[in-house]
Amino acid sequence: MEADVSQRWARRENLALLTDYYQLTMMGGYWKTGRQDLSACFNYSFRDLPPHNGFAVTAGLEQLLDLVEELRFTDQDLDYLKDLGVFDQTFLNYLKDFRARCTIQAVPEGTLVFPEEPILQVEGPLIEAQLLETAVLNTLNYQTLIATKAARLRLACGNDDLVEFGLRRAQGPDGGLSGSRAAYIGGATGTSNVLAGKIFGVPVKGTHAHSWVMSFETELEAFRAYAACYDDPILLVDTYDTLTSGLPNAVTVFEELRAAGRPARAAIRLDSGDLARLSKAAYRMFTEAGFEDPLIVASNELDEDLIADLKRQGAPINSWGVGTHLITASDHPALGGVYKLVAIREGEGPWEPRIKLSSNPAKMTDPGRKRLIRYYDDAGRPLADLIRLDDEAPDSIDPGQPATPVPFAERHDLSYLRAVWDPTRCEDLLQPAMRDGQRVGGRPSLEEIRARARAQVASLPEELRRLRNPEIYAVGLSPRLAAEKARLVRRVPGVLAGPAPGAGGSPASDSGRGADTTA
Amino acid sequence: MEADVSQRWARRENLALLTDYYQLTMMGGYWKTGRQDLSACFNYSFRDLPPHNGFAVTAGLEQLLDLVEELRFTDQDLDYLKDLGVFDQTFLNYLKDFRARCTIQAVPEGTLVFPEEPILQVEGPLIEAQLLETAVLNTLNYQTLIATKAARLRLACGNDDLVEFGLRRAQGPDGGLSGSRAAYIGGATGTSNVLAGKIFGVPVKGTHAHSWVMSFETELEAFRAYAACYDDPILLVDTYDTLTSGLPNAVTVFEELRAAGRPARAAIRLDSGDLARLSKAAYRMFTEAGFEDPLIVASNELDEDLIADLKRQGAPINSWGVGTHLITASDHPALGGVYKLVAIREGEGPWEPRIKLSSNPAKMTDPGRKRLIRYYDDAGRPLADLIRLDDEAPDSIDPGQPATPVPFAERHDLSYLRAVWDPTRCEDLLQPAMRDGQRVGGRPSLEEIRARARAQVASLPEELRRLRNPEIYAVGLSPRLAAEKARLVRRVPGVLAGPAPGAGGSPASDSGRGADTTA
Repeated sequence: MEADVSQRWARRENLALLTDYYQLTMMGGYWKTGRQDLSACFNYSFRDLPPHNGFAVTAGLEQLLDLVEELRFTDQDLDYLKDLGVFDQTFLNYLKDFRARCTIQAVPEGTLVFPEEPILQVEGPLIEAQLLETAVLNTLNYQTLIATKAARLRLACGNDDLVEFGLRRAQGPDGGLSGSRAAYIGGATGTSNVLAGKIFGVPVKGTHAHSWVMSFETELEAFRAYAACYDDPILLVDTYDTLTSGLPNAVTVFEELRAAGRPARAAIRLDSGDLARLSKAAYRMFTEAGFEDPLIVASNELDEDLIADLKRQGAPINSWGVGTHLITASDHPALGGVYKLVAIREGEGPWEPRIKLSSNPAKMTDPGRKRLIRYYDDAGRPLADLIRLDDEAPDSIDPGQPATPVPFAERHDLSYLRAVWDPTRCEDLLQPAMRDGQRVGGRPSLEEIRARARAQVASLPEELRRLRNPEIYAVGLSPRLAAEKARLVRRVPGVLAGPAPGAGGSPASDSGRGADTTA
Repeated sequence: MEADVSQRWARRENLALLTDYYQLTMMGGYWKTGRQDLSACFNYSFRDLPPHNGFAVTAGLEQLLDLVEELRFTDQDLDYLKDLGVFDQTFLNYLKDFRARCTIQAVPEGTLVFPEEPILQVEGPLIEAQLLETAVLNTLNYQTLIATKAARLRLACGNDDLVEFGLRRAQGPDGGLSGSRAAYIGGATGTSNVLAGKIFGVPVKGTHAHSWVMSFETELEAFRAYAACYDDPILLVDTYDTLTSGLPNAVTVFEELRAAGRPARAAIRLDSGDLARLSKAAYRMFTEAGFEDPLIVASNELDEDLIADLKRQGAPINSWGVGTHLITASDHPALGGVYKLVAIREGEGPWEPRIKLSSNPAKMTDPGRKRLIRYYDDAGRPLADLIRLDDEAPDSIDPGQPATPVPFAERHDLSYLRAVWDPTRCEDLLQPAMRDGQRVGGRPSLEEIRARARAQVASLPEELRRLRNPEIYAVGLSPRLAAEKARLVRRVPGVLAGPAPGAGGSPASDSGRGADTTA
C-alpha cells in the first residue's frame, strides 16, 4: 500500500487526509445515519498553561485558515479510502465535492489567552466541523506553545536579541518552519531558519560553525577569511579553546580590521563552557583592546531559567541563541488543547447546548456557543476575562455610571470585579475569521501580530510576568453560563434528552434519561 | 518581505532554504575564498541516548535522501537571498545550478545504534556537505528519537496493539507524518493519522470521539448508531460516566448485535479515569455477559512507565493508544544529534583528519573517515561495536582460528572482547546510500525497515531491554583511531598545521601552531 515516490511527501495543497481516522469514521457514520443536516458548534481551548506560565500567546490561526480554505479530497485520497473497505461509495462521493462551509470565530494571533477560554469557535455542518478537529489541534496547539515559550524567553532576555536556532531539533520541515514563525510572534528577534525568512519575513541571523574553523589550517586564518568575506562578522571562538585560542584570535582579527580602516563591532559567539565566566573574560579582553560594547552571542542548551540566572550573575551576553528548548518547549513539549462539541442544532432549529462530563471535574466542558470578553482598567491593563453565552446581552461599560459589579460567577467568583478593579473598557476577543468557508477580516501581517503580542505582554501586571509562580489571571463564567452548566450536569448520565431526572431504570437498560434539549 | 499567499507554505519540492543561515554564509565564504575544490567528510552521531534507554533505533534516512536528491534553489529562493544584500552574485549563480554530488554512507533505517557512533557519513565538496547539515539533523534527530521511543513503548506493551495517536500534539503536518512513520518502525502497530496510511502504508486505526456520543440524544442511541454503521465497532465509554452509563450501554449494544445475529467482539475505549480499575470492571461486565476476550483500548496520557505499571497491576487492557508522550518523546523531546567535520581533502590529495576540541571532553569529536563494525556471537546476538578508521584492514573473523582479541581501545577498553565474548561474525553497518548525488542500494519498504528493527531489538540481551538503568552496550574505538585522536588532541590549540607544539608565541598573536596535516 506504500505510495510511489512522487507521492511520498505531504504536499501542502493536499492535506485533507491529515486527520485522525476516527474523524472519517464519524463523518461516514453521520452520513450513513442521515445526520447531514445537523449543525454543530465546537470550541478549541486548553486546560492548563505550561508550568510556571502566567499566560499563553495564541499562534497558528493564519495557517489553519489557509488549510481549511484549501481542503479538498483528491482522487488519490478517495482511492485510498475506498481501498480501506470501510466507507460507502455515496459518502466518498460526498467527500469528492467537499468544500469547507463553516463559520469560524477566533481570538486573533498574538493575543494573550488563559486556561478554559474559547480561543476558536467553529460552527457549521457537524460532518464538516468534526473533520476540522485534527487540523485545529495540530496547528494551534504547537504554535501557541512555541509563541508562549518565546514570550517567556523574552521576559528572561530583557531587551537583548533572542534568536531561534531550533530547526535542527524540530519535528521535520514545518515543525521548524511554523516554530520559527511562532517564536517570532512571541518575542524572538530572528531565526536561523532561512525558509522562515523567505516565507514569513522573519529576520534571519547566523554566523559560522566549527566546521568553518576546522576547514582552515589555523583558527586565525579561518577568522581572517570570515572577516574578509562579510561585514559585521561574528566569530565562533570555542572550536579549540576559548580562552587561549578563540578569544585571542578574535581580538587579533578585530584589531586587524581596525588597523586596515575597516572597523567592525567586536562580535563573538560562545557555544560551550561556562557562559558567565567566558563572557566576562571576552568582555574584558575586548574592552582592554579598545572595543567598547562587544556583541557576545551565547548558545548551548539555553532556556529561560539559565538565561535569567546568567543575567543575575552579570554575564555580559547581549544576544541569546536558543534552539532545542525553544523549538520543542522542552519542559512541556505539548499544549493540551482540545476541541469539544458545545452545541448542536437540527436544521434551522434552536442551538442546544451539550456537555461532556468526566470523573475528573476539570475535564468537564463548558456548554453552549460563547463570547469571550476581556475587561481593562483605564490604563489599558487587562483585569479579568468573562466567558459568557453568545445570546446574553452585549457587553458595555459606561464609564460615566456608578460602579456596578460586572456579572461573573464560577470559575473564580469574580462578582466583585467592578467594585474592586473598576474596569473602564471591555473587548470581545472572538473575532470573525471565516464565514461560510470564506476568510473574513483580512490577513494581518506577521509584524502586526508580533506587535500585538509584545504590547499585550507589556500591558500585563508584572505579577503575571514572573517566571516562577506567577499570579493567576482571573477568568470567570457568566452567571447564566454557570447556571446552564450546572443544569446540564444535574441531568447525568445521558444528559441530553428524555424523561426528567430520577425517572429511573437500571444504568444498563436506560441511560437516556436527562435534560432539556434547548438552551 | 512576507511572501504572498501562494508561497506561504513550504512545498516539499522546494526545501533548499530549509537550512540555517550560517550554512549559506559559510558556503558563500568558501566560494569567495576560492575553496570550492576542498572536499570534506562529515559524520552524524549523537552523544547521549534519551534517559533510561539502552539503545536507539535509526529512522529518517529515506526522507533525507529524497530531500538531498531534490535539492534545488529556485528563482524565488535566489531573489530572496539576493535581497538580503550579503551574497555575491557569482555565488548565487553557483546556487542556481546546484545539484547534490555528495556520497553518503549510512546505517540503514531500523538499525540499533549507540552514542558516538557514526550513523551517517557524508563525503563531497565542502561547500555542499556543509549545506546538508541542517537537513541531516532536522530529518534524523526527530525520526530516530520517535522510533526509539516507540521501541521503548513496545517493550512495555508486550504483544499488545500499540497505536500512535499523536497527530494533534505534533509540530505541524509533517511532524505528525514523519512521527507516525518512525513510530511504526519502532514498533507501533498502527496510527490514527490517515495521511500516514495513504503515503507510507501505516495501518490506520480509530473509533469515535466524545462528540459522536454528544451529537445524539442519548449515549445508547449513539452506540447503536455506530454499531449499525461499522463492523467491529469500538465504543468510547467515558463521555458521561464509564461505570454507570458507558459500560452498561456498551454491553447492551453488543448483546443486541449478538441477538440480531451480528455478533462482534466486545470492544471499548477508555479515555479517562483510573484505567486499571475501569478496565477490570469492563472485563468483568463483558465476560459476565458472555463476551470472552473483550478488546479494551486505553488512551489518556499514556507512556511506557504507566503502561508497564498498569500491566503489573493486571489491567486487562490489550490495546494502547499513545499520543503526546510518543509523538513528542515528552520526557526528552530532542535527540542531540550533531554533524561534525571529521576530515578535509584538497583536490585529489590525501584525506586529513580534523578534530573539534572542547572544555567538555565528551564534546570532543572523533577524527577521520570511519567504519562502524558490529560483532555478533554465534546466536546472532550483538556483542559490541567498533569504530575504526576507513583505511584500516578490513574486518573479518575466522571462526576456525584460535581466539585472538578483537582490537578495541578507547572509549571502553574492550581489548579483551574476543577472549570474553567470542564473536563469530561481524558486520559493517555503514552502507552505501548515495553516490555522487544518486541514490544507490534501493528503497527498502517500510515493512522491511520495521522488521529489521523488531528483529534487532529481539536479538538484544534482555539487560539492554530494561526500561530503567539498562546495561551499557560496549562501543570502542580501534587502537589506531584512538591513537590518531590522541595525537590530534596533543597539538591544541590550533591543531591543524604550523610549527611543532611548544614553538611559542603568545596566545593572542599565534594560536596557529599545531599538528600534522596528514592522516
